[in-house]
Amino acid sequence: MSSQQAQWIGIDCGTSNLRAFLIDQSGALVAELDSDKGMGCLKPEEFEGALVSLIEPWLGQGETIPVFACGMVGARQGWIEAKYRPVPCKLLQDAQLTRAETSDPRIEVFILPGLSQDTPADVMRGEETQVAGFLASEPGYCGVVCLPGTHTKWVSVDNGIVGAFQTFMTGELFTLLAQHSILRHSVSEAGEDPEAFMGAAKKAAEHPESIALKLFGLRATSLLNDPEPRVARAQLSGMIIGHEIGAARKIWSGLPVAIIGTSKLASLYHAVLDAEGADTRLIDTKFATLSGLAMAAKQAGAAVA
Amino acid sequence: MSSQQAQWIGIDCGTSNLRAFLIDQSGALVAELDSDKGMGCLKPEEFEGALVSLIEPWLGQGETIPVFACGMVGARQGWIEAKYRPVPCKLLQDAQLTRAETSDPRIEVFILPGLSQDTPADVMRGEETQVAGFLASEPGYCGVVCLPGTHTKWVSVDNGIVGAFQTFMTGELFTLLAQHSILRHSVSEAGEDPEAFMGAAKKAAEHPESIALKLFGLRATSLLNDPEPRVARAQLSGMIIGHEIGAARKIWSGLPVAIIGTSKLASLYHAVLDAEGADTRLIDTKFATLSGLAMAAKQAGAAVA
Repeated sequence: MSSQQAQWIGIDCGTSNLRAFLIDQSGALVAELDSDKGMGCLKPEEFEGALVSLIEPWLGQGETIPVFACGMVGARQGWIEAKYRPVPCKLLQDAQLTRAETSDPRIEVFILPGLSQDTPADVMRGEETQVAGFLASEPGYCGVVCLPGTHTKWVSVDNGIVGAFQTFMTGELFTLLAQHSILRHSVSEAGEDPEAFMGAAKKAAEHPESIALKLFGLRATSLLNDPEPRVARAQLSGMIIGHEIGAARKIWSGLPVAIIGTSKLASLYHAVLDAEGADTRLIDTKFATLSGLAMAAKQAGAAVA
Repeated sequence: MSSQQAQWIGIDCGTSNLRAFLIDQSGALVAELDSDKGMGCLKPEEFEGALVSLIEPWLGQGETIPVFACGMVGARQGWIEAKYRPVPCKLLQDAQLTRAETSDPRIEVFILPGLSQDTPADVMRGEETQVAGFLASEPGYCGVVCLPGTHTKWVSVDNGIVGAFQTFMTGELFTLLAQHSILRHSVSEAGEDPEAFMGAAKKAAEHPESIALKLFGLRATSLLNDPEPRVARAQLSGMIIGHEIGAARKIWSGLPVAIIGTSKLASLYHAVLDAEGADTRLIDTKFATLSGLAMAAKQAGAAVA
């Protein structure tokens, strides 16, 4: 499409990738592009070039299009630091957008703020936009939003206000253990076993206190009984996720849990939470991200109502 | 010394090192040698060469000296597999030593068995010799033996019999997290802070269920408050060790805890256990290892009574 019809561009910037969405005047998503150039491989002065090279096909000859970006682009090591907003707060409402300077006159870049929490210390960048997007469709939501990932977030929401959140390093722990620990000899590089996963997850959710103990059991079982490495991989995944869900029980117990995620990982969280009796459902990630970015665009006066 | 006075040689074989002890006819340690060639870098057919090259200075011209070896030398990937003995059992008594074939007539090599446990699955190789050595001096011991390390072992002993044991991957988790996770940006490569360590350890011991949650708090604190990386390193160490000691509470609560270890790590376990009210003391590692190897030598009829 030409830039005449384009209304704004949304950017979701992770550590290892950059995702761009082109939105037209009706608020509809008309195109999207991905790049593997995320915050992790870009210096501040390289962000504009990486962005323009990704969205060049969408840029016209002179018209300026606003770009709304969330995630690691606003980190201290990102393009320009977008200050965290402290919780409790109403997401994105009255949020200060941070302007990133650009030399290309065809774009005007606004970065969304992340969230911070004093006690216990915690931060997020990017997930707050997805939570805001979800809340846009359910402004009176009271419950928990769970965002599975490398660093899974559990966000407590009361009538649309984010009260507290907690981050678990579960995804990163799984990768470290499966690829770099002694368990790498016992678990396969890929493959699934839903039954082994769920068995391990339920046990770990019941006794989340003994994760460092249970982990070595995988290695010992592999030495003593030589099980299939695919089974051990599923058990490791189950242990780690079950540990988290058990340790987070105080957060979600008795409340609805909306899981934002379309990945296999999100479906695993969904299955374990469901088995643990939680009132849980899955929310599409792209829907949530786009809705959140649209709120920022609207706030900046760039979007059609 | 000449081989005339040498009675036997003891070997402690880890994954990354090989330690040799020369024992005379009176049972005294007269020399020791170290090598960085542990099980991890040796194929089965390379063990004899590595051993002989290490202890060559102790070998005579024709006389055969017995060598008693414990640890990873008996692993499946070691020199020759020495079957695990299942618990409960009386350590080393009636233990089958496994003979490793050698082409050098000056040595005769016997490998000590490890221990295995069916439920929950667990294994050890090397630590059982230290526990046996400790029990040699306290044959009626009732309590727990804790052996801090990459994979820390907690061994329950009742009147000299090993009833059950449990392995925690604490040391390996610390290294993975400090060197390979997002926390590597927040913790220093070395350095201590006893106060920060103990504060984190006590909290984690009280609430061992939420380790994956607390870990990210270190990263968030570092982003929000920019503490000294040395403090964050001590807190990571405290969290991980405190988590283990809290999760292991059922094992040690109300019982004496003998910690076998001379390392800094052992003194950290000692400090946290002491703060948690355990009746605990430190046992010298070399003393325990040598006493255990001596029991094997005696059993094989090679040692002076």
